[in-house]
Amino acid sequence: MRYFEDFSVGEVHRGGPVAIDAAAIKAFAAQYDPQPFHLDETAAALSLFHGLVASGWQTASLTMRMMVDALGVAGRFIGLEVEEMCWPLAVRPGDVLRVEIEIVELRPLRSRSDYGLAKLKVTTLNQLDQPVQHARSTTMIARRG
Amino acid sequence: MRYFEDFSVGEVHRGGPVAIDAAAIKAFAAQYDPQPFHLDETAAALSLFHGLVASGWQTASLTMRMMVDALGVAGRFIGLEVEEMCWPLAVRPGDVLRVEIEIVELRPLRSRSDYGLAKLKVTTLNQLDQPVQHARSTTMIARRG
Repeated sequence: MRYFEDFSVGEVHRGGPVAIDAAAIKAFAAQYDPQPFHLDETAAALSLFHGLVASGWQTASLTMRMMVDALGVAGRFIGLEVEEMCWPLAVRPGDVLRVEIEIVELRPLRSRSDYGLAKLKVTTLNQLDQPVQHARSTTMIARRG
Repeated sequence: MRYFEDFSVGEVHRGGPVAIDAAAIKAFAAQYDPQPFHLDETAAALSLFHGLVASGWQTASLTMRMMVDALGVAGRFIGLEVEEMCWPLAVRPGDVLRVEIEIVELRPLRSRSDYGLAKLKVTTLNQLDQPVQHARSTTMIARRG
């Protein structure tokens, strides 16, 4: 288990891999983003993606999973804000994703002495090392003791 | 089905409602955000949330679902970027969410004549009309014809 004091600015933590297939893409989309290019190969082939692609919200959610597992602050890692997030490249069936989490800033939280604030730069990449999501976020991490 | 030309700056589109219960919160968290305050009532009661709360990524994903259903541009509504997103209040079991989508800016897309760019201000609210998520995002919407 890591605490706020165990992180340093400039560190890069790595997480994953996580594989994604057509069934997982369709299952997420059916519940959260029911658009043809996330649901059906034939419709997707005719779309501007030229094939089935994952919802950006699925990429974001898988990225969160990889972050929770990689940072090891489970139970004490609370997202406050996403300053920016974009999806430069589509995620497709068969892709294998991983994440790089850079610690950009660490500072005490004025309102609560038991937590610190961490600003993160989070890059999600596919098996060809191409970024599929860039994000900057601010999270609360518990202090030791 | 709506096209880019059917939207006007200043319009507010409303979507939802969507109810969320403890089982749905735990199911999402087990897959995407396995932290104790999303997974287990007893651990959650001892956390700074004082009870089970939904992952912010579940709120974001449910918001996307309400947007797809409300805007009626299914198949032609492509998120490019989230400029900011935050969660001012926790989502808890029994909450009923809805969404307000304000059209902030509309402009042609230089790189593709078949799509337009829409900037949106998206507010997700609970049954007490308290905002649980604020987001600003940029999406591509297909032009007519």
